[in-house]
Amino acid sequence: MAKIPHRLNLTEEQMPKQWYNLRADMKEQPEPMLNPGTMKPIQKEELYPIFCEDLAAQEMDAKTRYFDIPEPILDVYKAYRPSPLCRAYNLEKYLDTPAKIYFKFEGNNTSGSHKLNSAVAQAYYAKKQGLSSVTTETGAGQWGTALSEACSYFGLDLTVFMVKASFNQKPYRKAIMQTFGANVISSPSDTTQVGRAILAMDPDTTGSLGCAISEAIEKSTTTPNCRYVLGSVLNQVLLHQSIIGLETKKGMEILDEYPDIVIGCAGGGSNLGGLMAPFMQDKLLGKANPHFIAVEPASCPSMTRGRYAYDFCDTGKVTPLAKMYTLGSGFIPSPNHAGGLRYHGMSPIVSKLYHDGYLDEARAVEQSKVFDAATLFARLETILPAPESSHAIRVAIDEALRCKETGETKTILFGLTGTGYFDMAAYSSYLEKTMTDYIPTDEDLEPGFDSLPKIPGTQD
Amino acid sequence: MAKIPHRLNLTEEQMPKQWYNLRADMKEQPEPMLNPGTMKPIQKEELYPIFCEDLAAQEMDAKTRYFDIPEPILDVYKAYRPSPLCRAYNLEKYLDTPAKIYFKFEGNNTSGSHKLNSAVAQAYYAKKQGLSSVTTETGAGQWGTALSEACSYFGLDLTVFMVKASFNQKPYRKAIMQTFGANVISSPSDTTQVGRAILAMDPDTTGSLGCAISEAIEKSTTTPNCRYVLGSVLNQVLLHQSIIGLETKKGMEILDEYPDIVIGCAGGGSNLGGLMAPFMQDKLLGKANPHFIAVEPASCPSMTRGRYAYDFCDTGKVTPLAKMYTLGSGFIPSPNHAGGLRYHGMSPIVSKLYHDGYLDEARAVEQSKVFDAATLFARLETILPAPESSHAIRVAIDEALRCKETGETKTILFGLTGTGYFDMAAYSSYLEKTMTDYIPTDEDLEPGFDSLPKIPGTQD
Repeated sequence: MAKIPHRLNLTEEQMPKQWYNLRADMKEQPEPMLNPGTMKPIQKEELYPIFCEDLAAQEMDAKTRYFDIPEPILDVYKAYRPSPLCRAYNLEKYLDTPAKIYFKFEGNNTSGSHKLNSAVAQAYYAKKQGLSSVTTETGAGQWGTALSEACSYFGLDLTVFMVKASFNQKPYRKAIMQTFGANVISSPSDTTQVGRAILAMDPDTTGSLGCAISEAIEKSTTTPNCRYVLGSVLNQVLLHQSIIGLETKKGMEILDEYPDIVIGCAGGGSNLGGLMAPFMQDKLLGKANPHFIAVEPASCPSMTRGRYAYDFCDTGKVTPLAKMYTLGSGFIPSPNHAGGLRYHGMSPIVSKLYHDGYLDEARAVEQSKVFDAATLFARLETILPAPESSHAIRVAIDEALRCKETGETKTILFGLTGTGYFDMAAYSSYLEKTMTDYIPTDEDLEPGFDSLPKIPGTQD
Repeated sequence: MAKIPHRLNLTEEQMPKQWYNLRADMKEQPEPMLNPGTMKPIQKEELYPIFCEDLAAQEMDAKTRYFDIPEPILDVYKAYRPSPLCRAYNLEKYLDTPAKIYFKFEGNNTSGSHKLNSAVAQAYYAKKQGLSSVTTETGAGQWGTALSEACSYFGLDLTVFMVKASFNQKPYRKAIMQTFGANVISSPSDTTQVGRAILAMDPDTTGSLGCAISEAIEKSTTTPNCRYVLGSVLNQVLLHQSIIGLETKKGMEILDEYPDIVIGCAGGGSNLGGLMAPFMQDKLLGKANPHFIAVEPASCPSMTRGRYAYDFCDTGKVTPLAKMYTLGSGFIPSPNHAGGLRYHGMSPIVSKLYHDGYLDEARAVEQSKVFDAATLFARLETILPAPESSHAIRVAIDEALRCKETGETKTILFGLTGTGYFDMAAYSSYLEKTMTDYIPTDEDLEPGFDSLPKIPGTQD
């Protein structure tokens, strides 16, 4: 057999033409979203004021196994996909492990992350419905960048509410969104009622993701022909991100490989959900039994220490309620944690699979150990990883070292979601040893849990 | 015939295993380098105090047509090469041009640019000779980043003298080099005699590339077991960069294509020299006649307005003399120009080919028009281009628009040398319309020309 290459690039013809909907193969479905007013399962039509109709349909559809990817979306995908499936030979050699380490790299596009896969889809469907604009929020900036790029391509106006702290600390993230023509507003702002109310209470607030979501939703519902879009957590986003896993599986088939362990970082769950989708299908159908590991920061441990409960998707409590692993929408993530993965909840699909034991394991890792792994990886594999992705690298290295101890030749696969070019401040603090780790005490978690809505009979 | 894909990725097996030495096919050779002390052609052995022996041999070798790429270098190349050959379908469609636009993208590695191709080679040969460290200088930071990565991989200490203005303005460039373990020093510094002398005269100086080169050379010659390395201009660098062109040519053969026009940005000439090498071979051997265009900034017009003359490669006047297109080592580039391409001279090989008419055309473009092109390209092709590369994009667009006028279906090829993630300050100034253009007057160029060494009978 030919030697496995460092990078396998599928041809354009080999790129999947359909997304895979994991729910179609789940025997037990995630609990339905609830309307927080009526506490009844939400209907598709109730989502129309927020999402455009095709996306609302995808959000609610648990039956259709495969969705054709529309041609105009494929055209954009082809400009940066298929993404490479890489063998980390240099890392393996350095670790002196018998394990084989593969990673799927999603950072080779301007947005620098996997977020573009869903941004392109959401912008396309919005345009198809004849909308003239969309709104969103961004924290670390990857989603805002990806959506700016997608909206620019499809000719859609975009307003991004960017958490004020990031807006001030990351002027270059702002600049790249503006390069794509987005209107970037520091949140809280005086452009919305909710923003003005927050500013009146605390003019010096540095903002929060929850506040930015509230502003983005208000703006979308008060602007004609406008909708709100979101970059993770949602079922539709996991559907779009399934292209990551589908390409990976096809690539591994060509290499005559199959992962024993599948590792993904988990903030809202879109990357992990996308990467694992077709492998999880095999598990659900009893065809294979890979070991799945979700990796989250110890500072925001929604899966390892959160509750499986109905909660709001935002801290402003304006969204429907979703059953998920959550620290409570009132949980305030540590500001000293680098990059993303600071979301209080988790994709309902990922949550359900974890709750039911199909997603085998969640592991929380500390920031300094994540940056140890990131730096080592950058030196050996010529990619500077995003801090988010580096959580997965950390666990991939730990598993490879375990194989070294046991002598097992396991095949490890992890998702490398993006590059860290806009996270050099975090790398600097790591280098200068000013980076600190933070693990919340049980007491620290209490205010978040206290914020959970009280819904008798629905909370575990 | 199958539709040409957006991106063609050669397989690992298709990656060239040899570099191509363009000089072997040049009937008239570039003039020899001169020892500025004796004014006699420099001998290989005279280069040993500066370059390690294998690189000195490559620098002087005009006969060997192909050099085997050592296995350890191929191993690093395989982690990020072959690089994609891309068809800019979206840009073609937007421009509504009958032209076919191809580009070779070199930005998919941590260093973000083609510089890594030569950095890996230079670090390997230094290590092979048993050296323990190397020194270099960096301005915009791409070369420093690439070399840091290469030295980290091969286990070589590296000191980078970074122009103080950049050191202060680009802390993240500094951080990425430090992530790879480099010792980054703001230049001028108190670590060298020449640095201390400059600081004594002007404690507030923001430094210059010339000063940084002088410090790096002094450091290399006063440190045991150390050499100095350089990222452009040199023959050895063009040799290493030939992999860009070799891959491109192989890719175009697979697509049954051949470029009518080959476009590269030109600062020191390493990217253009590497991209055009095998196509120039065809021209030298009478097999094909593509039209070559070197693109330079109007603010630093060494080819379009410089002289073909012997000059120092650095402003400190410590290097050998090279015959090249130059604005004079005393030329001070405009500080308002973004990114690289600010070198006073040009690769002697590129210069000779231009002087003899094989390199057909040099074109100087203004900064604002370059950023018009960069922004359009980013929106359409999902890659945020480096300002340097965007000079080539500008001319590719101009040529495609000319084809629209004439109705010609030309095949245009340009080199996309890297990404602009660390150039967002320039993109910001473009967006905020504070970016200015600068075209030096003839008077502005005089001090540079006055600095040219007076060598009777050798200057055109």
